[in-house]
Amino acid sequence: MNALSTKPYKGTRDYYPEEKRVQNHIFSTWANVAQRFGYEEYATPILEPLELFTAKSGQELANEQTYVFTDRGDRTVTIRPEMTPSVSRLVAGRRQEMAMPARLYSIANFMRYERPQRGREREFWQMNIDIFGVQSLEADAEIIEMAYQSMKAFGARDDMFTIRINNRELIDAMMYSYLKCDGVQAQLMIKLLDRKNKITPEEFRDQAIEIFGTEQAESGLMKLATLLQSRTIMDLPVEVRQHESAANMVRLFEVLTEAGIANAVFDPTLMRGLDYYTGTVFEVFDTHPDNARALFGGGRYDGLVGLFGVEPLPTVGMGLGATTMQQFLEVHGLLPDDVSTTDLYLVVVGEKALKGAKRLARELREEGVRVEVDITGRKFDKQLKAALKKRIPFLAFIGEEELRSETFILKDTKTTDEQVVDMSRMVSVVLDRRKKTTGDEFDDLFI
Amino acid sequence: MNALSTKPYKGTRDYYPEEKRVQNHIFSTWANVAQRFGYEEYATPILEPLELFTAKSGQELANEQTYVFTDRGDRTVTIRPEMTPSVSRLVAGRRQEMAMPARLYSIANFMRYERPQRGREREFWQMNIDIFGVQSLEADAEIIEMAYQSMKAFGARDDMFTIRINNRELIDAMMYSYLKCDGVQAQLMIKLLDRKNKITPEEFRDQAIEIFGTEQAESGLMKLATLLQSRTIMDLPVEVRQHESAANMVRLFEVLTEAGIANAVFDPTLMRGLDYYTGTVFEVFDTHPDNARALFGGGRYDGLVGLFGVEPLPTVGMGLGATTMQQFLEVHGLLPDDVSTTDLYLVVVGEKALKGAKRLARELREEGVRVEVDITGRKFDKQLKAALKKRIPFLAFIGEEELRSETFILKDTKTTDEQVVDMSRMVSVVLDRRKKTTGDEFDDLFI
Repeated sequence: MNALSTKPYKGTRDYYPEEKRVQNHIFSTWANVAQRFGYEEYATPILEPLELFTAKSGQELANEQTYVFTDRGDRTVTIRPEMTPSVSRLVAGRRQEMAMPARLYSIANFMRYERPQRGREREFWQMNIDIFGVQSLEADAEIIEMAYQSMKAFGARDDMFTIRINNRELIDAMMYSYLKCDGVQAQLMIKLLDRKNKITPEEFRDQAIEIFGTEQAESGLMKLATLLQSRTIMDLPVEVRQHESAANMVRLFEVLTEAGIANAVFDPTLMRGLDYYTGTVFEVFDTHPDNARALFGGGRYDGLVGLFGVEPLPTVGMGLGATTMQQFLEVHGLLPDDVSTTDLYLVVVGEKALKGAKRLARELREEGVRVEVDITGRKFDKQLKAALKKRIPFLAFIGEEELRSETFILKDTKTTDEQVVDMSRMVSVVLDRRKKTTGDEFDDLFI
Repeated sequence: MNALSTKPYKGTRDYYPEEKRVQNHIFSTWANVAQRFGYEEYATPILEPLELFTAKSGQELANEQTYVFTDRGDRTVTIRPEMTPSVSRLVAGRRQEMAMPARLYSIANFMRYERPQRGREREFWQMNIDIFGVQSLEADAEIIEMAYQSMKAFGARDDMFTIRINNRELIDAMMYSYLKCDGVQAQLMIKLLDRKNKITPEEFRDQAIEIFGTEQAESGLMKLATLLQSRTIMDLPVEVRQHESAANMVRLFEVLTEAGIANAVFDPTLMRGLDYYTGTVFEVFDTHPDNARALFGGGRYDGLVGLFGVEPLPTVGMGLGATTMQQFLEVHGLLPDDVSTTDLYLVVVGEKALKGAKRLARELREEGVRVEVDITGRKFDKQLKAALKKRIPFLAFIGEEELRSETFILKDTKTTDEQVVDMSRMVSVVLDRRKKTTGDEFDDLFI
């Protein structure tokens, strides 16, 4: 038989411990923010019926990017490409029983069949966070506040990112009342604006002319330029500004200012690709010149829960991707030092010390220390090398003499400082470091 | 359009917050045990090439139970039905770079196309925990010690479970040296013993006779009875007992006794279904009469890493299922009280208090409190009802007067006790309860 390949499936990644620690840093920071705002965790299956996504996720996502197949019972299923329809299904399933507003989050994996490239993987991880049952813009503001706080929780400064905000109803007012587009033109224009940062200004101009048609081209382009120059709601032409959604946007910015958010801006060109949005849409953008891109976003989608045959529920939510977040943290130098989750490595000196070393490890574990014991019986220096390679913060040398005297040499692998300690001192030194590194003593995310 | 169904895909579950909390309790307890022993987390993709499982997982699993399909690029892939081949692939991929022994764990979901029934779901969650690079039975002992400690970590007493242990080489000695089976007979006999607890004694007898053939039936059945009656290695017939693996088993039990494990027993009928085991095999059994079944198990599989064209690595591992663990905890009354992850619900009395309530919430969050604010503007009693339904341990009433005086009524929703507190007192009361409930202050599993 030929050897099996060690490569993971195309467009997906293995997470070795050092890579998993980066991902876990992102997950734990996210979950902490979600929990601080009173959001509770849920989960849904990795497989869903395809129709869940054909309903509202948009043609491209459902028809071209899904991992769709027929199961052994002849059902057409797909690996979920996003969470929003699934969480809507979950809430619809207990529409009457659940306490409202439902504040929910999940951290889960998804798959899309796309050409893999930097920051885009076929399997990717997201936190999704949604509030169900609030009609007022207080819900929009809360989700955007969490977007802001999630960035701050990673140590980001306000100048490292901006939050761009728009509104689907306002977009409609721009398209119909102001640009005088018909339905088809509006669709094309929204798609064009969505691609704006991915094409050249010339391409943008040419495609805009095509949409307006030669007759309306000149006035259309002028009007479009006015829109694109609007930096606040007040800059918008009066036909748009007088729309009710404009007043709501002004109010939304006031509420965000009260929450201490100074880097939120109005962006009339922000469209968001997904079909289900009905009101506010927003995206968090990286301001770093080497990574000037959208990091994540969300918006209001009041229509989804109702698709399941229950009374509709107003909803606002967002989805945060782990890979784009990692790139943000890397480019801004915000990733913490990489250290093993293990606190202490017991280097066992001499075969006869193994039994005692294991007994000591058991006692240390009782005190909450995470201890790896070298059970290989190999040479001292090989044991040491393994501990360093694993980036374990402390090691202790355990020989018969140490076990008899109950005093041990504890070595800090980073500073290379050594100290002679008894067991209880060993526990406090080791746990103090962990406490200092992880910060919050209440970081348990599973409880 | 017809309404979409709210049901999850057949054989899978949605986890609403109260169900996710149970699952998270299991995950966090597992991860804690793994980390205490110095194991580090990894992750692999949900999709794998099918051949990864056809190699060694066994015919039934690979050919009948996989969610296999062809992707849009014509690759034959499957949703992983188990973790062992994937983690072997991961280790083989960095065979030279990784520090050995590699101690690894993951908590992940899997899918198998089986008839759903109690304790068996098509999508299921497991912790997998493996040690790579140790030839001696110290590795077998460490994995079994973790199996034991994982049960104790849930509060299980020694009499609630037993650990049954056998050895594949010893099984071979039983089959060939003692029962005088040929290859085919041995295969059939192993399968029969694997099914022993699922069939009647009569069926077992009849099928055993069929395997031995009429001529050997009588002596075969007598020998089989001797095997089945063996409670320790010393009870085994001499042809089996003199085998090297028997001496290793005796030594293994000594090491387990040193680790304080008193409920491990030798079980000559324990086979374990998977093809890749090469030495020790074990299973943890529930002793409760209403749930007398295998909870999880594992063993030594020295041959897998070598399949990837690299130097082989001795390996011992186990896989723990969340659903069977939940059933164990339920039947023994070991599940903790269900409480929301949210600490505190702010009941907002009067529209004018909302802005102040949100400000207070921000201050509380800064102090680490998990706070949900009622932003709906609905009536007082409806807000209260939502907080209780969500099982949030505390609520506070926030009106204009409370904001002015900076004193608040804090209500314990379980005891219904109320106390008048300022903000800093509110923080300490709320966080003290969480600290007491979650126990360990170092329970962060993602860092």
